[in-house]
Amino acid sequence: MKEFVYHEVVKVYDTDYQGIAHYASYYRFFTDSIDAFNAKLLGKDSKELVEGNKWFVVAESEAKYRKPLKIGDNIMISVSAKALSRKAIEYALLIKRNPGDETTTEGRLVLVCIDRNTFRPADMHEGMFNLLDS
Amino acid sequence: MKEFVYHEVVKVYDTDYQGIAHYASYYRFFTDSIDAFNAKLLGKDSKELVEGNKWFVVAESEAKYRKPLKIGDNIMISVSAKALSRKAIEYALLIKRNPGDETTTEGRLVLVCIDRNTFRPADMHEGMFNLLDS
Amino acid sequence: MKEFVYHEVVKVYDTDYQGIAHYASYYRFFTDSIDAFNAKLLGKDSKELVEGNKWFVVAESEAKYRKPLKIGDNIMISVSAKALSRKAIEYALLIKRNPGDETTTEGRLVLVCIDRNTFRPADMHEGMFNLLDS
Amino acid sequence: MKEFVYHEVVKVYDTDYQGIAHYASYYRFFTDSIDAFNAKLLGKDSKELVEGNKWFVVAESEAKYRKPLKIGDNIMISVSAKALSRKAIEYALLIKRNPGDETTTEGRLVLVCIDRNTFRPADMHEGMFNLLDS
Repeated sequence: MKEFVYHEVVKVYDTDYQGIAHYASYYRFFTDSIDAFNAKLLGKDSKELVEGNKWFVVAESEAKYRKPLKIGDNIMISVSAKALSRKAIEYALLIKRNPGDETTTEGRLVLVCIDRNTFRPADMHEGMFNLLDS
Repeated sequence: MKEFVYHEVVKVYDTDYQGIAHYASYYRFFTDSIDAFNAKLLGKDSKELVEGNKWFVVAESEAKYRKPLKIGDNIMISVSAKALSRKAIEYALLIKRNPGDETTTEGRLVLVCIDRNTFRPADMHEGMFNLLDS
Repeated sequence: MKEFVYHEVVKVYDTDYQGIAHYASYYRFFTDSIDAFNAKLLGKDSKELVEGNKWFVVAESEAKYRKPLKIGDNIMISVSAKALSRKAIEYALLIKRNPGDETTTEGRLVLVCIDRNTFRPADMHEGMFNLLDS
Repeated sequence: MKEFVYHEVVKVYDTDYQGIAHYASYYRFFTDSIDAFNAKLLGKDSKELVEGNKWFVVAESEAKYRKPLKIGDNIMISVSAKALSRKAIEYALLIKRNPGDETTTEGRLVLVCIDRNTFRPADMHEGMFNLLDS
């Protein structure tokens, strides 16, 4: 299992009238963290993933919101990932304000590799699977 | 348990470069459906919920994406809800294209009632709880 | 010039920490209004526009925010449109809370017709141009 | 007049079914650039701006889209700003892929300083005005 930490700032467009980050905005944090994880640890940036014949689509998404976040909060998102099979990756995400702090939010996404022409599940690139499996 | 069906159309801003609805956009469908459910079955529209001393915040969100949706798709979202306690409501959501069709997406949200001044959990309005519980 | 009125409600995800609709959210109101205008007055719903060989892309967008909007506000958006040429449509948008009220927001969008394969400007469908020009 | 260059990457959630960045997504690029400008050149990060008695609200927004952007594109956004009065700042924004490239997008935002309690226009902080005016 691979791990990685990504840093973000809560922006005005992430907040709602309650003065805290809107629940769906966290999926922006998760997407950005996973993009960075894929680029840094799997050697696949979003451009490369898009231009190939294989795409990843989200099959499951999930979040538990334990503590609210506010505009301007500097957050760190720990990403870990493992291959569920040759066709699916599970990403686990934990948001904290600082290293020693309690977790404010937990997330989980499952991405499935598909053939972009048929939209049918497909094996991910061998190198990607090996990196995840190592 | 109460049930309700809400109708939506997939918009251009719900889609991404893959030509299908982006996974986080479904939370817009869920939010709109729940708003309509609350207004129609619980007698609480969003303005009333916002102006009172009690707010609802999302504690958990979850979706399973079985089939993709495309721009212009007319979808129906079935919402059912039950009180988990006097402080929390669980909404279950099912998206279909037409009544007899297979489910494209399943969702689940847990909303917790809070005191807007302290952000601490609080009992929801008695009338709302009774309607959910009946 | 064609005119049409579309009704919307300001949603939680349209708001930000200031308790009012976020400036970029108005472009959702504009997009939805233009979709409805195109479907009702030009006979082209978004599915049909997407599936043809001709797409519309936004070339200019503009808004003036005179009065804030809040969650739950019922708004009416007046859309008028004219052909700038056989390749471009200008939409003018005015938001009010009620028919006699002052305008809260003014918008303007220019959409250009392109060939979806080349992304080069192209003449819009004759029927569409005639309806706009009549 | 102050100038600053901010770097961004076009993300999946910025794109739509046409395979290019959605027109309203550019306002995310503009917001992020202005946040960075304010923090670096005016010494006001978003947290500080939010917590004070004076807020900034968007009074006008505008964009001209000359060339499309795609997912994964690395873009540079030049921000320049000037005080229109003691109550209003105009930001001009230019997006390019690389320093020597043509401009893909032009933007313009006017932000007005308000008293957060009354929502009436108010003079911005003296230091902020002086920095803009210098």
